Amino acid sequence: MSTQQAGEKAIMTIPGEREIHVERVFAAPRERVFAVYIDPELIPHWWGPRGTSTRVEELDATPGGAWRFVVTDSDGSEIVFRGVFREVARPERLAQTFEWDGMPGYVSVDTAEFEDLGDGRTRVVTNSIFHTPEERDGMLESGMEKGMNETFDRLDEVLARS
Amino acid sequence: MSTQQAGEKAIMTIPGEREIHVERVFAAPRERVFAVYIDPELIPHWWGPRGTSTRVEELDATPGGAWRFVVTDSDGSEIVFRGVFREVARPERLAQTFEWDGMPGYVSVDTAEFEDLGDGRTRVVTNSIFHTPEERDGMLESGMEKGMNETFDRLDEVLARS
Repeated sequence: MSTQQAGEKAIMTIPGEREIHVERVFAAPRERVFAVYIDPELIPHWWGPRGTSTRVEELDATPGGAWRFVVTDSDGSEIVFRGVFREVARPERLAQTFEWDGMPGYVSVDTAEFEDLGDGRTRVVTNSIFHTPEERDGMLESGMEKGMNETFDRLDEVLARS
Repeated sequence: MSTQQAGEKAIMTIPGEREIHVERVFAAPRERVFAVYIDPELIPHWWGPRGTSTRVEELDATPGGAWRFVVTDSDGSEIVFRGVFREVARPERLAQTFEWDGMPGYVSVDTAEFEDLGDGRTRVVTNSIFHTPEERDGMLESGMEKGMNETFDRLDEVLARS
């Protein structure tokens, strides 16, 4: 049993050769956290590192539905991320593919499990699976951990005011 | 060293939990086999099991380029397969994603190595990687082996007359 507190940095581990495992606790009920994860109005307020802004171009949170977000960096450059939902089981589980348009055909699958901690808090356990060890390591080397922690901090802020 | 002969059934093995490995020998030089694999004029003559017909809607055999084939079954139903090329290294290696439109977001990566056997024959070694064991096993249970062997037999015929 983890003793991670809400708002603490995510716990990231790398089981096996092609996975990234992340756990993060949020000070909000499971239904609420799940809803914010797929809310096209709120995603621009938290999705992406600080200093970026995100535009939701497509978000069909149903099995087989597509998502496509455009992230504008502080220098004005645009980065496109997209994928397809594989599972949408409110409020327990989301699974979706994840691709960066800069490397078409390099697709990971992110599965997020939303755990009700019974005290109004929620632990989100995310497992990302890559086809090859090289793709997993490339993601780790992209600076994802810093960006992910900033994203989760911004999500804390959205949850606190909503 | 395999003693597989040209035209013999493919050797299929399932290393690990999420891979399918296939070896098949063709009685044609490597350059020729590689070229036929990505030739939009010839693909309709061999791609797919016997009794089906395949239409190439898109085929951009460059890294990041898309492919999309529509297979019409004997009963007239259409099945769409598609993906993106990750590597195109003529005449040694092709890597591409593979998706069936019936299960969006379930993406495998197929890597084909073309080995020059030095006597005018070519061994094609294909490795398919899936994100999960369930996806690999689902592919095995789809009847792929029969369809694959028919496809390779049709490719033998195309190579023999070209």
